[in-house]
Amino acid sequence: MALAYIESKKPTATAAAIMASPPQLILTQDDLKKIAAYKAVEFVESGMVLGLGTGSTAKHAIDRIGELLRQGKLSNIVGIPTSTKTHEQALALNIPLSDIDTHPVLDLAIDGADEVDPDMNLVKGRGGSLLREKMIEGCCKKFVVIVDESKLVNYIGGSGLAMPVEIVPFCWKFTAQKLQSLFEDSGCVAKLRISPENGKPYVTDNGNFIVDLYFKKDIGDLRAAGDAILRLAGVVEHGMFIDMATTLIVAGELGVTVRNK
Amino acid sequence: MALAYIESKKPTATAAAIMASPPQLILTQDDLKKIAAYKAVEFVESGMVLGLGTGSTAKHAIDRIGELLRQGKLSNIVGIPTSTKTHEQALALNIPLSDIDTHPVLDLAIDGADEVDPDMNLVKGRGGSLLREKMIEGCCKKFVVIVDESKLVNYIGGSGLAMPVEIVPFCWKFTAQKLQSLFEDSGCVAKLRISPENGKPYVTDNGNFIVDLYFKKDIGDLRAAGDAILRLAGVVEHGMFIDMATTLIVAGELGVTVRNK
Repeated sequence: MALAYIESKKPTATAAAIMASPPQLILTQDDLKKIAAYKAVEFVESGMVLGLGTGSTAKHAIDRIGELLRQGKLSNIVGIPTSTKTHEQALALNIPLSDIDTHPVLDLAIDGADEVDPDMNLVKGRGGSLLREKMIEGCCKKFVVIVDESKLVNYIGGSGLAMPVEIVPFCWKFTAQKLQSLFEDSGCVAKLRISPENGKPYVTDNGNFIVDLYFKKDIGDLRAAGDAILRLAGVVEHGMFIDMATTLIVAGELGVTVRNK
Repeated sequence: MALAYIESKKPTATAAAIMASPPQLILTQDDLKKIAAYKAVEFVESGMVLGLGTGSTAKHAIDRIGELLRQGKLSNIVGIPTSTKTHEQALALNIPLSDIDTHPVLDLAIDGADEVDPDMNLVKGRGGSLLREKMIEGCCKKFVVIVDESKLVNYIGGSGLAMPVEIVPFCWKFTAQKLQSLFEDSGCVAKLRISPENGKPYVTDNGNFIVDLYFKKDIGDLRAAGDAILRLAGVVEHGMFIDMATTLIVAGELGVTVRNK
């Protein structure tokens, strides 16, 4: 588990290109996401089976892969989408698609994250696709995580934002209460995710609900916490991606940082 | 974890009553199930919140509870059914029903099991209701398990029959393969459960699939095995009920055995 840092605080060629096009002085969060995403796509080689992430940052990477395929700079790519939304995006870009039933081992996955801790453990799933993402990104030889610097936290839950847990709809209040009790010492509050579109419970691609956990304090040993969550019978999966990322790309105002594990 | 045995190898009053009615010499497996079920219902008191199991043995217990309510020998019972099937049976018997959202703590649950090992660990779910059963029976003060003696095994999986795992339908082949690999050393074979009615994958009350695991050898530490299964992202729940049963009632040809943990 030795960590190797490759830091470049100068803007890279990629970053410089994006920064150069419209003469901007201040980069938006979306610009930073794009910079990280383009950098990640440099890891993609022709012939690869690729896990395609979900969310605003991953979307830029998928757009870029589509662009390189169209330009003939990449070929023989097979994409494995982590959500129905990504499936649609990739289809529109003519990226050939498959699934992990057919390709149970992937060369590389690229995806964003909601939080990244100093050990490169992640929180994912604020976009609601944590289960498929975890299935797919759990069987990749390399998993490149792309974030803007706002996603870096001192500990999981440290952003004050949600750590999502996918649960079965049956007696969800019971499961939410059990989850909250599990992390009582960390001041946990559990909230059912509501879809802003219709005011009803948000439903995942797998027909389940999401309970968002908010922590006031560090929950400690993540693997133990993960096992305790999974032992609750109503839980399907949690949004902590522990020891899964192999490369982290962070885009900040001063440039891009690439870190390998 | 001291085990107290209360063994009565003579037929009990309940058993004697059932055995006496039609003069039979040989008890069928269903007679034995009924004897165990009736014995379990002796633990039920008026005013209790009761978990109602699923399957052929539990069905007898629920019928008996309905009978006692009708006769006025029990009152103020609230039943929490562990499946839609049990829900329907209990409704027909006029047993008042609720759920664990409303009653998160139960006084007692009564249910059958597919296997019982010497430490009173169980395999459940051959009937397909393992998830709701585990949610409900996991929050009971007492959990009475009722079986005929054919269900006793030396180790979990020892009957040669299935240990069921509920999984999400998404890329089920991938998850089944991962499950089989996990227990390669125990000669595990993983099979998707097919509904005999339509030849399609069996679908649980929660909209998921079941993969049945068959072991040739003992899988060892059950808690470690359970955690390893739950860590697979496509898994929802497994059918091992570890350290959950508080009372075991076994009906055999020579009488009823009651064992407390």
